[in-house]
Amino acid sequence: TVGASTLALAQSTEDLIKYRQSGYTFMSWNMGKIKAQVVDGKVPYDQAQVVAAANAIAAIANSGMGALYPKGSDMGTGWKETRLKPEFFEEPEKVREIAVNFVQQANKLQEVAAAGDQGAIKAQFGEVGKACKACHDNYRAEE
Amino acid sequence: TVGASTLALAQSTEDLIKYRQSGYTFMSWNMGKIKAQVVDGKVPYDQAQVVAAANAIAAIANSGMGALYPKGSDMGTGWKETRLKPEFFEEPEKVREIAVNFVQQANKLQEVAAAGDQGAIKAQFGEVGKACKACHDNYRAEE
Ligand code: HEC
Ligand code: HEC
Repeated sequence: TVGASTLALAQSTEDLIKYRQSGYTFMSWNMGKIKAQVVDGKVPYDQAQVVAAANAIAAIANSGMGALYPKGSDMGTGWKETRLKPEFFEEPEKVREIAVNFVQQANKLQEVAAAGDQGAIKAQFGEVGKACKACHDNYRAEE
Repeated sequence: TVGASTLALAQSTEDLIKYRQSGYTFMSWNMGKIKAQVVDGKVPYDQAQVVAAANAIAAIANSGMGALYPKGSDMGTGWKETRLKPEFFEEPEKVREIAVNFVQQANKLQEVAAAGDQGAIKAQFGEVGKACKACHDNYRAEE
């Protein structure tokens, strides 16, 4: 049926790569806003904006992005050729650990953003950045 | 300084187009999950997944995407050439109305997802879909 083929289409590896590239890129926009306001001080602190940014990062982190990593998706093109390394599929325990830690750090950023203490937000922003980097250092290829 | 040029880079029109294309595309993945579970019934209903999807949609909707529409960004290439129509900049009141309605409908989807009544989720999914379409019909060019 048309419905079934639409579903199949929505689950192609190319689409899934596009979704994960989109999720990470959208998080990076929100990380940038928090950095500008709380770390670099280049933009005046606006609590509502920082809360909204932290909410977006946490909600994306909790959205089940693991489903965007089907076997074999270390090859393929979403918005562009994937940067996923094959090691991702060879070290499931380590991947899980990195991913779980990332979600926990993102949830904590959401909490401290809501509380509004800029020092705590800055510190937790650093922890989230480390959690992003842990994954990139292991599983994202250089460009 | 390096910091200033990094900031300038992060705010290039090309990057902002990429961020908005990413945000919408990531929302569409989450809309697809809700549709498969609650509208089409192709995937068994899993409340935690539907809640997570609705949270992601709402958090992205509330993240201040208006900042991703600088004047002139009806031309430019993010992940691909933008589909934004110039009318977006000529009808600010109508854009605001469509955008505000979208955020309200997304927030309501988050609420009904948390409550867990599948009939209500299905109905509200339809309202969010209409809110996406209202914007696309007016401001997103055909491909
Ligand atoms: C669990 C692993 C993991 C975590 C956690 C993670 N990333 Fe990534 N990231 C990746 C992988 C893998 C890719 C490459 C995706 C692809 O091309 O298929 C990527 C891609 C990206 C890209 C797109 C870069 C490009 O090629 O244009 C950005 C930006 C990014 N990540 C930022 C972040 C930020 C910011 C965070 C944290 C808030 C984060 N990532 C957390 C694994 C991760
Ligand atoms: C306020 C306006 C607006 C709202 C609300 C909106 N969109 Fe869009 N959408 C756009 C515009 C404009 C573009 C084109 C962006 C670009 O190319 O610069 C777009 C692009 C997209 C794309 C990328 C398509 C492509 O070219 O590959 C998808 C997918 C999408 N929207 C889905 C959605 C979904 C799903 C929703 C609701 C949950 C939604 N949009 C809500 C305006 C909107």
